Amino acid sequence: MTSSGGFARTPALNRPTPYIEIDEARLDRNLAAMQARADSAGVMLRPHTKTHKSIEIARKQIALGAVGLTAAKPSEARVFVEASFADVTLAYPIVTASALDELLESAHAANARIACIAASPQGVAAIESASARHHVRLGCYLKVDVGLRRVGVLPSDTKVVEITRLIADSPHLTFSGLLSHAGHVYAAASRDEIVAVAGREAKDLLALKSVLEGSGIVVPQISTGATPTALGAPIADGINEIRPGNYAFLDLTALRLNVCQPGDIALSVVTRVVALNDRYAVVDAGSKALSSDLGPHGIGASGFGIAVAGGSSIVERPYRVERLSEEHGFVAHEGKPPAIGDLLRVFPNHSCAVMAQFDHYLVRSPAGEGRMMCIDARGCFT
Amino acid sequence: MTSSGGFARTPALNRPTPYIEIDEARLDRNLAAMQARADSAGVMLRPHTKTHKSIEIARKQIALGAVGLTAAKPSEARVFVEASFADVTLAYPIVTASALDELLESAHAANARIACIAASPQGVAAIESASARHHVRLGCYLKVDVGLRRVGVLPSDTKVVEITRLIADSPHLTFSGLLSHAGHVYAAASRDEIVAVAGREAKDLLALKSVLEGSGIVVPQISTGATPTALGAPIADGINEIRPGNYAFLDLTALRLNVCQPGDIALSVVTRVVALNDRYAVVDAGSKALSSDLGPHGIGASGFGIAVAGGSSIVERPYRVERLSEEHGFVAHEGKPPAIGDLLRVFPNHSCAVMAQFDHYLVRSPAGEGRMMCIDARGCFT
Repeated sequence: MTSSGGFARTPALNRPTPYIEIDEARLDRNLAAMQARADSAGVMLRPHTKTHKSIEIARKQIALGAVGLTAAKPSEARVFVEASFADVTLAYPIVTASALDELLESAHAANARIACIAASPQGVAAIESASARHHVRLGCYLKVDVGLRRVGVLPSDTKVVEITRLIADSPHLTFSGLLSHAGHVYAAASRDEIVAVAGREAKDLLALKSVLEGSGIVVPQISTGATPTALGAPIADGINEIRPGNYAFLDLTALRLNVCQPGDIALSVVTRVVALNDRYAVVDAGSKALSSDLGPHGIGASGFGIAVAGGSSIVERPYRVERLSEEHGFVAHEGKPPAIGDLLRVFPNHSCAVMAQFDHYLVRSPAGEGRMMCIDARGCFT
Repeated sequence: MTSSGGFARTPALNRPTPYIEIDEARLDRNLAAMQARADSAGVMLRPHTKTHKSIEIARKQIALGAVGLTAAKPSEARVFVEASFADVTLAYPIVTASALDELLESAHAANARIACIAASPQGVAAIESASARHHVRLGCYLKVDVGLRRVGVLPSDTKVVEITRLIADSPHLTFSGLLSHAGHVYAAASRDEIVAVAGREAKDLLALKSVLEGSGIVVPQISTGATPTALGAPIADGINEIRPGNYAFLDLTALRLNVCQPGDIALSVVTRVVALNDRYAVVDAGSKALSSDLGPHGIGASGFGIAVAGGSSIVERPYRVERLSEEHGFVAHEGKPPAIGDLLRVFPNHSCAVMAQFDHYLVRSPAGEGRMMCIDARGCFT
């Protein structure tokens, strides 16, 4: 990072700091580019809402051609179902039927299509029980662990056919196919590694599909999803759907992975210098605003963001956010300090984690106007 | 950490996970112990509300004898002023007068006493201007940097008398004295180091007081504040007030610093095992619930928490939360996995950062009953 490049922009409004600013032109460009990428590969796009948690942005995604939404938790999915989104995949392993109660009440009322994921017999039983109880037929994917070692059946697991059959044979569920999240791609050191992770993911899923179909189980769909693989690798034949989320805003992690340019990052935090010493310009955005995330899944950066002058002067060399307290960011000024009271714009490691902190965000229109919007699905933990 | 010791407790309620549980018996004990410590040292206690952000807990602190509250941001202070707390110190460097507008409107209406801190001429001017505009006489401390290198005038700074005189000579402000936060104590490796940090802090502040008084400026009070120094070192003669916050809940950081026992930690996150593989039990509390904080000011741990069985079985050896995604915690089970669906209780690195995530917390009474309470001052960024 030797030049501020696309980093420096003038804040839209002089308002209390810190606040999230979304550059609408960049957002719209990012949304359109991913839809075009999906369209040209002939796959469906089902964006993950956990990045923006915003009804307005989800509406933009659907308007561009997304087939539906992905959500992280039942309470998050419910926000979108109640806002009339008719087709939501809940990409989270449900293991107790009661966890779906509120979502399925809303889905029943709205006649929304909900798909879940399962990776264990307990999971299948819980989803089946909720489906029966609420008279809502649910889609259900087999979640496949393609390397993150988080949730999913390993493709090599001897019980994979047995678990899939539990889904396929259920009178209450529709087997939707295979679903994966190659989150380990965030550890990639090069474009070649991203391509390798995506290639391996597709190969494993297609091989598993063959195994299942050899056992008489039809696999209707293969759904994958992660921004680095979606942007940084070809979408393999046989994949039907992608579920990236972060692509809407991007961040320093996407930049580090070389799947975007500085001028693509749509989310920043506008913050003010409140103290100055010989090492640091201290700003009013700390871990409570920026989060302490080094990147998705904790993989990533050595600092907590890049700060640039947000006022009238464009600095040549961006500053590094070296440390965070809860309410303070320590911006290493290396002898070229901004002034107390100056605004700085911080681009964070992980945009999704920043949206999870705030209740509102400011959208800056291409004309420079600012509008405050609600982060509708913030605080959805359950 | 070789035994679960005070870690294992039965969750109070079977409700959707994850959620924060506060053990009321431990909370009450922690609150009373700090008040007793302040009383026996003859100093005032002004707890920092950023830890709990809760009106109910602040009321307990005042009932025990706290002289007032400390708050991190004007919007946070305002929540407590509007809830009838009459005396709040805003331990944050204000550098623009407008930042105080809403707080001072509320303080004027409630006739509350507000004190600010300043460490620069810009800061003094901003506070003075706000004070004049709102017809609210404000207390103002000189913030002294005693080693964290964050906010404050260095005791050795040649401009220290000049800046203090700006406060003392202001017609709108009352000079309250010296205020410090020895946050660098979180890097201490031993009790001796904690004692050394506290001793050095007191020595520097008392020396500075002499310098100022030698220049004809009366220093009414010296206020220090950090849980590790308050619990882990004697309170030096000449200190008038302490402002610890974390002591209400404590956490793995306080345990690592050896200023508490496992059975003192009042905050935990109750979470459910949603997936299992050969390395990890994956729980439904990730960075969105636990935060990615390794400790206050980013100093601290190598993992993200300690998990113990929260149900009927008490495990002998607690588990380590090794990694976090946004919605998932990776609990290393080392060959002794809990079952899918099991509840685990996670004690976090940094309780304050966990409270900053949620909108509500559950209080478990000594009788085992659970009540949901509001985190009144969550989301106060400005």
